[in-house]
Amino acid sequence: MSRWAPNARERLETAALDLFVENGYEETTVAQIADRAGLNRATFFRHFADKREVLFGGEDVLSGLFADAIQAASPDATLIECLQAALAAAEVVMTPHRRATAARRVLVVAANSELQERGLLKHARIATSISAALRERGADELTARLGAEVGMLAFSVAFQRWMGANDDEPFPPFAAAALRDLQVRAAELDSQSRLSA
Amino acid sequence: MSRWAPNARERLETAALDLFVENGYEETTVAQIADRAGLNRATFFRHFADKREVLFGGEDVLSGLFADAIQAASPDATLIECLQAALAAAEVVMTPHRRATAARRVLVVAANSELQERGLLKHARIATSISAALRERGADELTARLGAEVGMLAFSVAFQRWMGANDDEPFPPFAAAALRDLQVRAAELDSQSRLSA
Repeated sequence: MSRWAPNARERLETAALDLFVENGYEETTVAQIADRAGLNRATFFRHFADKREVLFGGEDVLSGLFADAIQAASPDATLIECLQAALAAAEVVMTPHRRATAARRVLVVAANSELQERGLLKHARIATSISAALRERGADELTARLGAEVGMLAFSVAFQRWMGANDDEPFPPFAAAALRDLQVRAAELDSQSRLSA
Repeated sequence: MSRWAPNARERLETAALDLFVENGYEETTVAQIADRAGLNRATFFRHFADKREVLFGGEDVLSGLFADAIQAASPDATLIECLQAALAAAEVVMTPHRRATAARRVLVVAANSELQERGLLKHARIATSISAALRERGADELTARLGAEVGMLAFSVAFQRWMGANDDEPFPPFAAAALRDLQVRAAELDSQSRLSA
């Protein structure tokens, strides 16, 4: 077992997901995950703080990608353009490996409320990061918080659609479409049309 | 200790919060909470599934109040009017007791990531409940999910403002104002104005 195994992180993620699906999340130990990946426990803990984190590594990366993209957007950018830039920047973590494992990951998380809670905490932290980046560009607090919620909802919708799409379609067009769909509906919140179908 | 003590639920909530502030959440046991409230452990577990739940009892009630109010709204109601009806219905749980304990509760939750996670899970379940109620009235899925996020954000903003307000001001006007503030900003998401200040 090499201390600096290549792709250790990805191998641990794949091994964990395989074991969670086969034996259940609760029943799987960190030692078993490391063993299945051909690594040791110490290597696991160099990459992940605990067993739950192995399912949410991508989320910490997203938070930084989103904030950086908002900061780097053109000085003339509108709020929606800032959100578009943020979601497009997610492309680097929306890899074929992530797509291939996404459906199983969703199932594992949905089956365990402890995992759902961790996922929601990550989600909330990403939203806070988007909101802070929007405020730094001059958005008032409510606009920044609304922008962050709309951005996160667009990301979730885009992710669901991308996950179910065929072949290796890139992520950014899904993000742009979801954001456009939500923008139209946000504008309609102001309308006087009755909700009933 | 009476098996059917009056206000047992409220007494347990108050005792728990006092102990969490005095000794820390981790260090406090269910037995200590029950003891401080002048009740026993069995009574605690008749009201709450575990120690964390004692901080989030109101959330389960909110979920039902919101969904019922959306269902009962006039057939001509717009989406925003449905959300207004939902948030106004929260008034029954926005009691003087809740306001008096709110600031301490926020501090206790913020200091513990396990509690933050539970709070987020409750939040997500309420959002799902709003979204389902909006879909039942004919909203498409994205409109319902956006409506639920806007409603929850309005609720959070209104709660923060209400918590900090003087005297015994009722909750509904805070909810209506927060929703109006967000509605204006949602309409502006469509605008072409640059974000920079």
